[in-house]
Amino acid sequence: MEAIQSVLMTAQEARQLAIQLSQDTLLGQSLRAEQQQLDRYLAQPLECPGPGPANGYEHNRHKQNYIHMDLAGRFFLISGDERYANWLRQLLLLYADRYLSFPYHQQLNTNPTGRLFHQILNEHNWLLYASLGYSGIRHWLSDSDRQQIEQQLFEPMLEMFTVKYAHDFDWIHNHGIWAVAAVGICGLAINQPRYVDLCIHGQHNDDVSAGFLAQISQLFAPSGYYIEGPYYHRYAIRPLCLFAEALARHRPELNIFEFNNRVIKTTLDALLACTYPNGRLPALNDASQTMDVNDEGIVIATAISFARYGHDAKLLGLAQLQQQVFTHPAGAALSAAVSAAADHTCAPHWPSVELNEGPNGDRGAQGFLRIQGHDGQQSMAVMNYGQHGMGHGHFDTLGITFFNRGQEVLTEYGFGRWVNVEPKFGGRYLDENKSYARQTIAHNAVTIDGQCQNGFDVERADAVCGTPHFFIADDPNLQGMSAFANDHHHGVRQQRTVLLVNHPQLQQPLLVDLFRLIATDQQRHRYDYAIQYQGQIIRTDFDYHYHQQGWSVLGQDNGYQHLLRVADAHIAQPSTLVSWLAGQHYCSLITSANADAEVIFSRTGGADPSFNLRSTPSLIFRQYGGDHLIASVLESHGLFDEAKEVSVEARGQIQQLLVRHHSDDASIIDIIGSQFTLTVMINNHPQVNADSHCQVTLAHDSYQWRGPVAIRTTDLN
Amino acid sequence: MEAIQSVLMTAQEARQLAIQLSQDTLLGQSLRAEQQQLDRYLAQPLECPGPGPANGYEHNRHKQNYIHMDLAGRFFLISGDERYANWLRQLLLLYADRYLSFPYHQQLNTNPTGRLFHQILNEHNWLLYASLGYSGIRHWLSDSDRQQIEQQLFEPMLEMFTVKYAHDFDWIHNHGIWAVAAVGICGLAINQPRYVDLCIHGQHNDDVSAGFLAQISQLFAPSGYYIEGPYYHRYAIRPLCLFAEALARHRPELNIFEFNNRVIKTTLDALLACTYPNGRLPALNDASQTMDVNDEGIVIATAISFARYGHDAKLLGLAQLQQQVFTHPAGAALSAAVSAAADHTCAPHWPSVELNEGPNGDRGAQGFLRIQGHDGQQSMAVMNYGQHGMGHGHFDTLGITFFNRGQEVLTEYGFGRWVNVEPKFGGRYLDENKSYARQTIAHNAVTIDGQCQNGFDVERADAVCGTPHFFIADDPNLQGMSAFANDHHHGVRQQRTVLLVNHPQLQQPLLVDLFRLIATDQQRHRYDYAIQYQGQIIRTDFDYHYHQQGWSVLGQDNGYQHLLRVADAHIAQPSTLVSWLAGQHYCSLITSANADAEVIFSRTGGADPSFNLRSTPSLIFRQYGGDHLIASVLESHGLFDEAKEVSVEARGQIQQLLVRHHSDDASIIDIIGSQFTLTVMINNHPQVNADSHCQVTLAHDSYQWRGPVAIRTTDLN
Repeated sequence: MEAIQSVLMTAQEARQLAIQLSQDTLLGQSLRAEQQQLDRYLAQPLECPGPGPANGYEHNRHKQNYIHMDLAGRFFLISGDERYANWLRQLLLLYADRYLSFPYHQQLNTNPTGRLFHQILNEHNWLLYASLGYSGIRHWLSDSDRQQIEQQLFEPMLEMFTVKYAHDFDWIHNHGIWAVAAVGICGLAINQPRYVDLCIHGQHNDDVSAGFLAQISQLFAPSGYYIEGPYYHRYAIRPLCLFAEALARHRPELNIFEFNNRVIKTTLDALLACTYPNGRLPALNDASQTMDVNDEGIVIATAISFARYGHDAKLLGLAQLQQQVFTHPAGAALSAAVSAAADHTCAPHWPSVELNEGPNGDRGAQGFLRIQGHDGQQSMAVMNYGQHGMGHGHFDTLGITFFNRGQEVLTEYGFGRWVNVEPKFGGRYLDENKSYARQTIAHNAVTIDGQCQNGFDVERADAVCGTPHFFIADDPNLQGMSAFANDHHHGVRQQRTVLLVNHPQLQQPLLVDLFRLIATDQQRHRYDYAIQYQGQIIRTDFDYHYHQQGWSVLGQDNGYQHLLRVADAHIAQPSTLVSWLAGQHYCSLITSANADAEVIFSRTGGADPSFNLRSTPSLIFRQYGGDHLIASVLESHGLFDEAKEVSVEARGQIQQLLVRHHSDDASIIDIIGSQFTLTVMINNHPQVNADSHCQVTLAHDSYQWRGPVAIRTTDLN
Repeated sequence: MEAIQSVLMTAQEARQLAIQLSQDTLLGQSLRAEQQQLDRYLAQPLECPGPGPANGYEHNRHKQNYIHMDLAGRFFLISGDERYANWLRQLLLLYADRYLSFPYHQQLNTNPTGRLFHQILNEHNWLLYASLGYSGIRHWLSDSDRQQIEQQLFEPMLEMFTVKYAHDFDWIHNHGIWAVAAVGICGLAINQPRYVDLCIHGQHNDDVSAGFLAQISQLFAPSGYYIEGPYYHRYAIRPLCLFAEALARHRPELNIFEFNNRVIKTTLDALLACTYPNGRLPALNDASQTMDVNDEGIVIATAISFARYGHDAKLLGLAQLQQQVFTHPAGAALSAAVSAAADHTCAPHWPSVELNEGPNGDRGAQGFLRIQGHDGQQSMAVMNYGQHGMGHGHFDTLGITFFNRGQEVLTEYGFGRWVNVEPKFGGRYLDENKSYARQTIAHNAVTIDGQCQNGFDVERADAVCGTPHFFIADDPNLQGMSAFANDHHHGVRQQRTVLLVNHPQLQQPLLVDLFRLIATDQQRHRYDYAIQYQGQIIRTDFDYHYHQQGWSVLGQDNGYQHLLRVADAHIAQPSTLVSWLAGQHYCSLITSANADAEVIFSRTGGADPSFNLRSTPSLIFRQYGGDHLIASVLESHGLFDEAKEVSVEARGQIQQLLVRHHSDDASIIDIIGSQFTLTVMINNHPQVNADSHCQVTLAHDSYQWRGPVAIRTTDLN
């Protein structure tokens, strides 16, 4: 006699969820939405299609099938409605009947292929969800049905993954988590403990070289950060949470949620701490621009984190942003807490956080600065000064993004890929991902001598990392981070210091950016300080030459072949101002200039024979020098509502920026507004701390301060 | 003793509104939003600034002042709170003190200038709202205050408008309505009936040459359409409704809402009937892309129309789309009806409608086709086959736009203007409005021999108009409109037929477009059939040459100087397919081709030295010929949700389009899908009607049908 339960839920828990089906709670809404989706799918004819291209019709059908198999098993347990069990039984028998008759797909890249999908990663997805669904009806099936489904479908799959593809099975990689979670959950579903053991402890049974315990011990930095960035992290977190929850239920002796100093909690926290205030994930490394906290993996992680690690107001805020919960007992707990919190509708406010990288946390870090403006809204700056993200790494060490007033203002292009769009090379990564999206010039960074960082050499990039300088998070009106990239370009060391500063006379926090270049080779270099933005140029405070008859590419390689020269200017003033309209807000960027400085207005579009790139503008501040400081300040001001025909403060207050000093000791700049001057002083010593004292004496001025940063305001009236 | 009332509201009505302040109704919400806005404004220091540039700080301050003066007067009547009256009194006295000391602005274009604003149109706005506000506190003011305000402020303004600028005062033009409404309402507010009479009957007291009655009799076509398009119509409708409501209250003998066969109702209906299903206004003539039914004029018009002309379900739907009502007794009636309708939450569904143009309705028309798809959503096609829109006219006769699944898919660029954005030439129209936005090539139309329609000659354009051919609105699965432009290009007559077709095997309605060109001069011409879209090119079914090293302008004039050549192709197949991703949906356009056909992929950006244009892509299908038919079909299919990483049906069903026949008698095309062929037959006779019989015999086929359009489906399986 089979126990009435699935891998993730007991019959009693299912009854508790059933009660919620009619409630006006996040859980009730989520359950109803899923049940409606399932009912619509059941109205379609059953189909187990034969081979088809990546992300083509057949691919999508198999994907929809596994999504709904999981739901059918779950809703049979919850509702007891045999429609769901019958449908799932028929579909599984259909797969069991056909699966072994399908040939393996033809291999087009390095990923091994399956019988259903062009890469086994998708077949892992299929197995995980089909197994979860199956576990909800197994007790209800006849012995012969069970035998048919397990022997013709699940066991051959397990054999394929663990024997045929043993070399690729339980490695320490985000795909590896999918593999062990799928095989392990299937092992639980069909009651084959040896597969569960294999997945937990790895093929060599050493908990080091492979398997789930080794993976969660080694995949993440001590901070919990995942090297490939949040986009891949959220994809790995889904099987991680599901398998951990299954193990907590079926192998309680592992105490998996406490394992290794609560490593699961650490990594969930790190992932959630990356999000922008609107719930979007910053696109670090290869990532889409639109991935957000409504991703299934994050929805599951939110609930599991709450249920397994206890109450946290940020998780309630996150669930409200998501407006859904995982339809599982863990989600029920979260939903109940949200209902109890009632009027607590604030967005989740994570603090500024620096997430270290590398197995020992000494391979640089990712910095996430957050500041609350006078209007209560959060602005956020992200800087990468950690490791190269392996095969998905972008060559953007010291690259930043900036989020302000509901949108990414200094943007990250994201990957060169139209995910799952079949006519775009089956939704795979496109050539332009390498030739543009991963190049340094595609980022908010400095490209030196027209070269990509580390010469676009992944091995070289993997061997180096950024060096944290300081991180200031304790002053609500001044948040700062600073780091070095000493090994990313032969002959030039780089230092970037980013501050978020509230000033009483400004609506919005200022983003202050000091990008320092140190020519250890004593040579003159070309420094292209690039700004990626979206929007309409409103005005400049300098004359420029617009290429009215046409635009040519900026170069022939390293991403420049994709950039068209729209306009350019030679600059003969100490700083330049460019204002643009970013959605409904104005942004003004004031950037320091030296002799021979140029400003180039560019737009993507060169060398894009398949229209694979989006059309996006950028600004390149080109300056030549050896030891050099490029400083800028970004002011967000005013608003424009075209539909209401309202425009206010289309001109900002900051007018000029002067570099007073830069050396290995310190950098000093003046930010000159219409009503005040801000003097920003940075201690550049790598070992600076809160007690460090710094003194700089110039011809007419003398400066001294304590700690890594000081800001002095001078009122002009 | 003054009566306690304002121009638009009695004390008793105000008490009724006061009750609503705390209610959870559209009116309650609207009242609270306004009161909060007013309270925030009152917290700022009083200021009546001196001269400043168009849309600069001073301009905005005067504008904010008049908006809040109106609210202060209204909320004093509603709430009785003397804070509002005191604030308004002080501000009016401040203006009275300073107004005559301000010099007139310097005149920079043809508009006369005021003392507060760079053009008197804005000063009319000011007077209208200030007068409304004043009328709410006049009874509460001392005699000396009244005297001061009226003699130092209002009367000099009235004098300026009606004497100094008499030549510009009560003309029949949308600015004229603002002039008479402002002066007339001020006349009512300060109890000077002679100004009211002047405004009603005009300077010559003839009700023909000028004045409100002449304006509303002559400004609109019999259909109610306003020649300058909905963007200007909604701007004129605001003073029209306010002054009409004031006259209904203070000059009831005029019976203004019944005047001239309810001309006010006709024109309100016409305006509202133009809107896209999402509430946006199609940008006919000079217009922004974002103007919508939340515009103040349309919010007022919705309430006035409901209160004065009775219940209409469409108005309830409209109010729900607006989520606000006019805070006036008329809005109270509408709000109460919305509350009573309770669950009636559907969007307003207007039928397809052809709005005739010209004083007698015989100067062409504007066509608005709507069809409901299988998913219940409305698609809409708009075609201009009416008059040139005077000074704001775009040279786009037979131009179309298409709205599908929540967005404009075939787009209208709109005007070349950043409204109210001071650094963009004070928010005025920009040079690029003439050189690009108003040119034929900027529209979804055919540009012949690279020339703008009517040679961009406004006088010539005003002298001609389109000729309606047929309009079919009675079949829920087939809506159609067809028209001729016979006089817009020397030597070539044009005919365009647009159909919206539901087919059981297609998710979404098809847009079928037959653009016929008749070379009366027997010459060979170049026909550029242009498609304006937004989105990412996904695939084509032909090879093309991408200009990888750079893009050059397509021409030197008529808008081509602003278009860059991104890619192009010579076509050797009967039709071409181009798919793009429009937001979350795929669109495939299949266009017929003849020998020597080219396809040009272009993007704006040439000759734009001040970055005044938005960056938008377009497709140009270039074909040469004499009598010629360019036919196309647009299929909307599938969906792409990047955040959820879902893409389905990235390829549509329609594969090819064949032109079978075109002549003065008929046009016949085959639209070939994967599962069916649609044969579309159009009777081209100008006088076609439902009973017309048409027969065409070709080499292998014979076609006969009755009426203007027939569609035959052949299943292929």
